[in-house]
Amino acid sequence: MSTSFALDPRLAADTHPLARWPLCEVQLMDDARYPWLILVPRIADARDLIDLDEAARQQLQQEVDVASMALRKVLAPDKLNVASLGNVVEQLHVHVIARFRNDDAWPAPVWGAHPRLPRSDAAREELMGRLQSAFPRFTFQEHPL
Amino acid sequence: MSTSFALDPRLAADTHPLARWPLCEVQLMDDARYPWLILVPRIADARDLIDLDEAARQQLQQEVDVASMALRKVLAPDKLNVASLGNVVEQLHVHVIARFRNDDAWPAPVWGAHPRLPRSDAAREELMGRLQSAFPRFTFQEHPL
Repeated sequence: MSTSFALDPRLAADTHPLARWPLCEVQLMDDARYPWLILVPRIADARDLIDLDEAARQQLQQEVDVASMALRKVLAPDKLNVASLGNVVEQLHVHVIARFRNDDAWPAPVWGAHPRLPRSDAAREELMGRLQSAFPRFTFQEHPL
Repeated sequence: MSTSFALDPRLAADTHPLARWPLCEVQLMDDARYPWLILVPRIADARDLIDLDEAARQQLQQEVDVASMALRKVLAPDKLNVASLGNVVEQLHVHVIARFRNDDAWPAPVWGAHPRLPRSDAAREELMGRLQSAFPRFTFQEHPL
């Protein structure tokens, strides 16, 4: 059952790599409607949050919180949406989404609300740069796995 | 800004009280389509997960995991959905939902998929009893806030 980790090809197809953190691959969903991060723990075969051992579960919470804080700092959203669903792509992943009262799905959840609307290369690179600048490196030096 | 905690009346209207844990009120959504718990930290004015201090954030994760494990133990779902959205009801709350491949919304998220379908009193009491029996009291004696 144990296999090596590889990012699910459906997640890879819809996202761009943004950062590699101690536990997670951090991907930016390529959807101009919402600033939308997906954190994927590099643990093969995990599906639910409670499949992680305690150290990984704790680390995932910290990385989700760091992602949330970066979105808040850079974009000042009206609300953060944080969710682990995985009904379609079974590989454990956590959505961290900056929501605004004037976004295309508000107040509904983003999933299924609209087709994905890819960003221009320039817009994507600009957003990725701002987010990467807001990611605090020290967090991971203090809490290595 | 600081006020005393009270369960949001919209959450109270759609749910039944199931347990009082060290941090959270645990409510059962009255929707026969899905076994659906809502955990509400008793902290006034919290909206996002990252609004909690570190101790409360850690405790919330533990209580979410205990709720997830109880749903898995009692119902053996195909997937757990765990989400903090709060675009409509701003009071911080976490959904913990047991999903099945044959449920009414699968594989879509449950929010907005169908109108709420209340359980019969007998069905609700039966489910509440099974869940309450699966909640491990010791967890909270070991980790009091």
